[in-house]
Amino acid sequence: MFKAIELAKRAARDGEVPIGALIVVKNKILAQGHNQVERLNDPTAHAEMIAITAACNSLNGKYLRDCTLYVTLEPCVMCAAALRWAQIRQLVFGAYDKKAGFLRVGESLLHPKTTYLGGVLEEECAALLKEFFASKRG
Amino acid sequence: MFKAIELAKRAARDGEVPIGALIVVKNKILAQGHNQVERLNDPTAHAEMIAITAACNSLNGKYLRDCTLYVTLEPCVMCAAALRWAQIRQLVFGAYDKKAGFLRVGESLLHPKTTYLGGVLEEECAALLKEFFASKRG
Repeated sequence: MFKAIELAKRAARDGEVPIGALIVVKNKILAQGHNQVERLNDPTAHAEMIAITAACNSLNGKYLRDCTLYVTLEPCVMCAAALRWAQIRQLVFGAYDKKAGFLRVGESLLHPKTTYLGGVLEEECAALLKEFFASKRG
Repeated sequence: MFKAIELAKRAARDGEVPIGALIVVKNKILAQGHNQVERLNDPTAHAEMIAITAACNSLNGKYLRDCTLYVTLEPCVMCAAALRWAQIRQLVFGAYDKKAGFLRVGESLLHPKTTYLGGVLEEECAALLKEFFASKRG
């Protein structure tokens, strides 16, 4: 999760909402991503989506059944559904997102075989977002 | 929708589940996509996602507020949530997808300003999928 926070900081430096994600398999980093919605002008360019696409590309397969995704913020509905398609083994996230997080709809959005854990380094992850939006408001 | 069916047929020719999508603004085709999950080994490479990314790229903005997306199959949860982020004006789809369609979760997955219409050329769109899966089963 420390590495995901680093990636989130990279997003912030680029003027993006600071969210970072990485995908790990057997303690090896397979792929990483940070939010690039503004830079790419693409509402689907969330950190998780970028990491999923990169990880599948790296594995040369459309499933991530042995992988864990670490992300600094609770994934949105789109990203949770993408994780379902990928049948990811585990999801670990930092801060909760009461407004746009997938848990608002329900954990059934994830694949039945996916386990998840939220609130890991929650304060650090949330602080990054808070700081970013405070600086935006000037 | 005829054009979306053409795109779906292109997917089928490539061995992909035949789903096609296009995004229209003021009667002009802005972007199109067909399912490329297998070719790209990417579980997020749905026709709709490809069309959304291409349309935003073309408009140089992350919103599609004046656009309509036509797609041959009811979008899944991931694609519906992506359409929400893009704040698309209208969604028109062909066949219903009782198993993986977003309506299983609820129409509230779409943006409150998005209107939708399902069942347009439903039989033609569904027949394409039926044919494809029948040929797969040999």
